Amino acid sequence: MTDAPLDAPAAASVELETLISLAKRRGFVFPSAEIYGGFASTYDYGPLGVEMKRNIRDSWWRGMVQERTDIVGIEAAMITNPKVWQASGHVDSFADPLVDCLVCQARVRADLIVDNVCPACDAVGQFTEERQFNLLFRTFVGPVQDDASVAYLRPETAQGMFVNFELVQQSTRRRLPFGIAQIGKSFRNEITTGHFTFRMLEFEQMEMEYFCDPADSMEWHEYWKQERLRWYESLGVRPERLRLRDHTSEELSHYSRGTSDVEYLYPWGWGELEGIAHRGDFDLSAHAQASGKSLTYFDQERGEHIVPHVVEPAAGVDRIMLTLLVDAYDEEVDARGEKRVLLRLAPEVAPTTVAVLPLSRNERLVPTARRVWERLRPHFRTQYDDSQSIGRRYRRQDEVGTPLCVTVDFETLDDDAVTIRERDTMSQIRVPLDGVVEALRERIEALRPVVREAGNA
Amino acid sequence: MTDAPLDAPAAASVELETLISLAKRRGFVFPSAEIYGGFASTYDYGPLGVEMKRNIRDSWWRGMVQERTDIVGIEAAMITNPKVWQASGHVDSFADPLVDCLVCQARVRADLIVDNVCPACDAVGQFTEERQFNLLFRTFVGPVQDDASVAYLRPETAQGMFVNFELVQQSTRRRLPFGIAQIGKSFRNEITTGHFTFRMLEFEQMEMEYFCDPADSMEWHEYWKQERLRWYESLGVRPERLRLRDHTSEELSHYSRGTSDVEYLYPWGWGELEGIAHRGDFDLSAHAQASGKSLTYFDQERGEHIVPHVVEPAAGVDRIMLTLLVDAYDEEVDARGEKRVLLRLAPEVAPTTVAVLPLSRNERLVPTARRVWERLRPHFRTQYDDSQSIGRRYRRQDEVGTPLCVTVDFETLDDDAVTIRERDTMSQIRVPLDGVVEALRERIEALRPVVREAGNA
Repeated sequence: MTDAPLDAPAAASVELETLISLAKRRGFVFPSAEIYGGFASTYDYGPLGVEMKRNIRDSWWRGMVQERTDIVGIEAAMITNPKVWQASGHVDSFADPLVDCLVCQARVRADLIVDNVCPACDAVGQFTEERQFNLLFRTFVGPVQDDASVAYLRPETAQGMFVNFELVQQSTRRRLPFGIAQIGKSFRNEITTGHFTFRMLEFEQMEMEYFCDPADSMEWHEYWKQERLRWYESLGVRPERLRLRDHTSEELSHYSRGTSDVEYLYPWGWGELEGIAHRGDFDLSAHAQASGKSLTYFDQERGEHIVPHVVEPAAGVDRIMLTLLVDAYDEEVDARGEKRVLLRLAPEVAPTTVAVLPLSRNERLVPTARRVWERLRPHFRTQYDDSQSIGRRYRRQDEVGTPLCVTVDFETLDDDAVTIRERDTMSQIRVPLDGVVEALRERIEALRPVVREAGNA
Repeated sequence: MTDAPLDAPAAASVELETLISLAKRRGFVFPSAEIYGGFASTYDYGPLGVEMKRNIRDSWWRGMVQERTDIVGIEAAMITNPKVWQASGHVDSFADPLVDCLVCQARVRADLIVDNVCPACDAVGQFTEERQFNLLFRTFVGPVQDDASVAYLRPETAQGMFVNFELVQQSTRRRLPFGIAQIGKSFRNEITTGHFTFRMLEFEQMEMEYFCDPADSMEWHEYWKQERLRWYESLGVRPERLRLRDHTSEELSHYSRGTSDVEYLYPWGWGELEGIAHRGDFDLSAHAQASGKSLTYFDQERGEHIVPHVVEPAAGVDRIMLTLLVDAYDEEVDARGEKRVLLRLAPEVAPTTVAVLPLSRNERLVPTARRVWERLRPHFRTQYDDSQSIGRRYRRQDEVGTPLCVTVDFETLDDDAVTIRERDTMSQIRVPLDGVVEALRERIEALRPVVREAGNA
């Protein structure tokens, strides 16, 4: 129980350890290279995790790129010309403040030292001077390891959109406003603080840079704040655990004219789920100056070149997946007093939408069930499973968030009908095989999260 | 002209410079960070390139994972515990032989020196001793840069499947044979030799490790050779430019009991498109020894633990895309003597399947065309374009490989019908809007490449 007032939203209540255990046991997320003891803040995604990540990416790409006429995608290299990171400011000032403890020699983040006590050895107040530690991962390209061969792993995907601004504009003949979107890995050599996949050294971003006329930029910022919040609701995240919060002037990055976070009420409190930054003309101007190119847009109506302003919604696949799992986790006690664990995932993001289960591994049921699976596969993300008792398989499908199961039993051989079982209610209905695709479609539609009306932009 | 016998297949004939120019102009592939002069063997993908890559990945994932019951996916970290790369042999022996030229100080690959002449300065025979240069990109994790903090960017995705073998097996309860598949970036600090995106420092792999009983492993190797060849044919690659070639015993990697390449006849000759290796039990045994874990499979029928053998089809997204572009490029002279450039891409991989074009940017045509676009979007990868004259837009759609265009003209306002134009034949037919989805589906089906029957496994 918390001290929150009665009308405050309830934070997601699943213990992170419970979720980490489920994620490993069921194949969502594994500690990376666990046979070697894992690796700091690094995870591998298992068979269900990778399908769920694909669904998150596909939903974002569909909504941000494919269903719009004003946004196109790119994929830039992770290791590119280091001049990009000099111009963007990352080489000089993308840093955390660190100190060394003189007692135990641990290197720790200065802002994590509470009451002047070393978090590693509990010694009081014996630290070196604070020093800025750059968060870029460095490597060397080519056979010689020297200053001339240093390159960096990108710390964000955003700069790929800025350095390609002109080539994209030329090849697509876009007029303002238009956006460039990208999904891909970024790398930050941070000292992380746990919370599972919430913060990792290597993480997958989904960023979009929306280039617009400076005069309209505040309106677009507001538009994207609302759009992005709505997207999380469309994925089924409980609205009462979502909020928009504007950064204070102290929090603002040097490049930003205003940033809002979509925040989620995690078990450990409100935390950033996505940032929507108004970056002004900072990046295009910085790259124009550093490269000597004119990164402008020619406004035909006004007959002049302008430097567009940029609004950037920046999300992370890993954090979204963690949030969806936290938000969807639920436990119930069934009529027989047994605990039922379920993930109330929306059909759009669940690793499997429809599981096809023969009642048992019977020689007549299996081929029939596989034919049903073949029939459903073109229409839904479908899994066939005949591995255990039907009760255990229902239980497992609940625990991995499969909204609907289709069961083939001995009656099916006579009546050409199957049973559809719903995850959330455990209700079962019998439908003829001829109409099973439509019946499943109806149920999936009914499970779709309700989202507020779109705002105006 | 070549000296090849008359019945030899004709190599793809497009000049690479022509393709590189088209790729940049139309938004398939850009030199990475071009405003800073690019970066060695590194490319960024533009709006069309990223959609085409998505199609290649989706086709592979659908065929290898989602439409099968014996293969599951994972996504492992790119930077993981360095013990993985010690056990796999990469730290010790993943190397190219290099020498320094004593005249110009250039460091060059020993096997590229022809007739004892430095390829950089043409000086004869003044080189240092040959030295092995490791191809792993190194970085440092954490705030201290020393031997203890060294980590590597993965040089292949395959090891992720081996180190997660047990966790995947446990979480999915798989029985042999079963496969684990992964798509993701890998990194090799190689001295590359041009040919556009054929070989890059950073490249995207699609690998699958198929674990099977040692007794069946040669049969599975043969099965996967045929399956993988068929897949390229299903993407529309001309069969006469494809072949399977077994590695000679000199070519074989130390871990391999047999490798075959799917090769393509590039403008510069036959080259590797995909390798299908029989890796035996090399990897599982190496990781079992290094980690002290027993990476075995319990065969219930025989009542004993076995170390599965592994067959690995390993493909690359970038190289496949380059191959599809090379293979699809064509030029024609039309009836008026004008050159028409077209990419004969299969509908499955073309960035756009259906382009919706209003005849002009007329205030009555545009809203109608956008309604048509809205109607087609749920069914096809659809693009709306009203940017230039209709002739130029047809020309552009040909050049980016769009198989079908739907044109909305003034008659449409009266007869509720549109024109479907085919890329390959330039033929046009008129169809009522009510039946346009079905008419497009029929045409797409007719354009699907013919593939040989599946072999037996």
